[in-house]
Amino acid sequence: MSDRVTIALDAMGGDNAPNMVIRGASIARQRHPNVEFLMFGREAQLLPLLERWKKLKAVTTVVHTDDVVAGNEKPSIALRSGRQSSMRLAINAVHEGKADGVVSAGNTGALMAMAKFVLKTLPGVDRPAIAAFFPTLRGETLMLDLGANVMCDARNLVDFAVMGNAFVRSVLGLTHPTVGLLNVGSEEIKGHEALHEARLVLKEANLPGEFVGFVEGDDIAKGTADVVVTDGFTGNIALKTAEGTAMLINEYMRRTFKSSLLAGFGYLLARSAMRKLRKRLDPRRYNGAIFLGLNGITVKSHGGTDALGFANAIGVAIDMKKHGIIEKTRADFAALMQRPPIFRQAAAG
Amino acid sequence: MSDRVTIALDAMGGDNAPNMVIRGASIARQRHPNVEFLMFGREAQLLPLLERWKKLKAVTTVVHTDDVVAGNEKPSIALRSGRQSSMRLAINAVHEGKADGVVSAGNTGALMAMAKFVLKTLPGVDRPAIAAFFPTLRGETLMLDLGANVMCDARNLVDFAVMGNAFVRSVLGLTHPTVGLLNVGSEEIKGHEALHEARLVLKEANLPGEFVGFVEGDDIAKGTADVVVTDGFTGNIALKTAEGTAMLINEYMRRTFKSSLLAGFGYLLARSAMRKLRKRLDPRRYNGAIFLGLNGITVKSHGGTDALGFANAIGVAIDMKKHGIIEKTRADFAALMQRPPIFRQAAAG
Repeated sequence: MSDRVTIALDAMGGDNAPNMVIRGASIARQRHPNVEFLMFGREAQLLPLLERWKKLKAVTTVVHTDDVVAGNEKPSIALRSGRQSSMRLAINAVHEGKADGVVSAGNTGALMAMAKFVLKTLPGVDRPAIAAFFPTLRGETLMLDLGANVMCDARNLVDFAVMGNAFVRSVLGLTHPTVGLLNVGSEEIKGHEALHEARLVLKEANLPGEFVGFVEGDDIAKGTADVVVTDGFTGNIALKTAEGTAMLINEYMRRTFKSSLLAGFGYLLARSAMRKLRKRLDPRRYNGAIFLGLNGITVKSHGGTDALGFANAIGVAIDMKKHGIIEKTRADFAALMQRPPIFRQAAAG
Repeated sequence: MSDRVTIALDAMGGDNAPNMVIRGASIARQRHPNVEFLMFGREAQLLPLLERWKKLKAVTTVVHTDDVVAGNEKPSIALRSGRQSSMRLAINAVHEGKADGVVSAGNTGALMAMAKFVLKTLPGVDRPAIAAFFPTLRGETLMLDLGANVMCDARNLVDFAVMGNAFVRSVLGLTHPTVGLLNVGSEEIKGHEALHEARLVLKEANLPGEFVGFVEGDDIAKGTADVVVTDGFTGNIALKTAEGTAMLINEYMRRTFKSSLLAGFGYLLARSAMRKLRKRLDPRRYNGAIFLGLNGITVKSHGGTDALGFANAIGVAIDMKKHGIIEKTRADFAALMQRPPIFRQAAAG
């Protein structure tokens, strides 16, 4: 059938692999009846687990390999010595057209290095980026880069804006997305040179939707822009600072409701509403970091996630395939190359 | 009396100045019976307001000036044309020894530019930094720089570590403070060159307490280190991202408790506990950004704060004076200059 989607899974990546991966795939199969899996990993571990999930087993092909990329392996080492690893074979499957996308909860750096090496970047893209959704007052905002590139020049930032714009238009169906560049707000502080150059280029680039210029850290949660563009250093720290703050408030809240009998009783009454709140802030809901700019769909699940979180990461890869993200991003870059010289110049580095 | 503290106030800075400033000073006077104020601003506005606060009036000297630095004024312009502004005269008072510290809720960039120009940096300090407290699971963490320096080299980061270390030892009384350098965590991503250089220097520097090396964004809320050091770009974005996240969860919570009658009733029961929670997260509690590395106490209040927040900022300045922060920071830098060459070399730029 034409609408079948095949996802390659690195069955050995993540803290609770392969158990978590298989249970996550099982949940994803229920949600997406048209999905099939290519599962790479140790047969002796995978086959017995699959016996427990007959319906999953029916849509899964296991490809055996003994080799696994360690969580703390240096990406350069993994790239050289991990050619038979479950991660690498899963990526190869996408490159060879056997799978529509790959999902791994393994070593982020190794996944990016291998995906970049095997799949290559799309024409016009210098460096891929890691993107993810942040919850906001208005819904969700896509932020990138979250750690693939510590140092970014203007050209990289412009690329990220184009990639993010294409993503929210195709996957979220936004026809008029807003894109902002993350910067510091004080009048004195001007931000890096690269930011100003990128701003000038994006003002001229006429991306579909609207370029809203500079946004600040608190604009992420406000939902000021549908896409927030930043370098990988700042993005990674913003992501983890937001996660840390949410964890802190959650803990304060737990202590608050435990602080008195009355508060505890109040919590019981508000329980179902509180459950909704927790669900809304559940990090598993936002699991699935997207590698953008590659010539192939690659999704990184949090290493410590559970089956539900992993199923969400698989869902992200399926959505990307369904909406033709690769083709759309490729077309957008091709169109931009026809644009006025100021853009081409920056886009050429 | 020897323990009297005189604080110079920029009475015209901030969204609700001078009313907010005067009411804030009144609250601070109640909290700190040994405080006196030098208030700079428009006499015609200040004197009638002071009539309402007789006890405050008794410890306040008003110095008239018509000139005010606008909130959107460029720092370089403010520095040149604002020589008679309330902000500048308040800073001058510290320089001339008439006041022990200055507090302003005005233009951050202008305040930093003027304070640096008038007060100068301490011997051995290349650039001052902006520091503030973040709430954590373990109490509070001091983070700097929050926006004074967009680009920082290794030497700046080392200076910030020394300044932050001196601050928490003297003002918080920590005898064995931990200091960390903010970095990204993934194995692949190594962080900027400056971070690695600063790490090497700090490992050798033997600051009082412990240097814990690199920390990540979520370590801020975890309270992994008493002092977290970063460049002003990253710090500013981390601060505002944390503020935005707290605002978002607060809004989600408000909606949650309003979502049903039962939840609303639950809230009523938990009300006093919830009030404690809100108090704990009240941004006014953390108001008062500290300018460190200057030869004089300078505190920046949030421009949009109210009297309570401004009183807290005044409290920060009084605490800094009480604990001799300037003398201690000066002594720490002097001591470090005697250290092994690796440090002196970096500290000399």
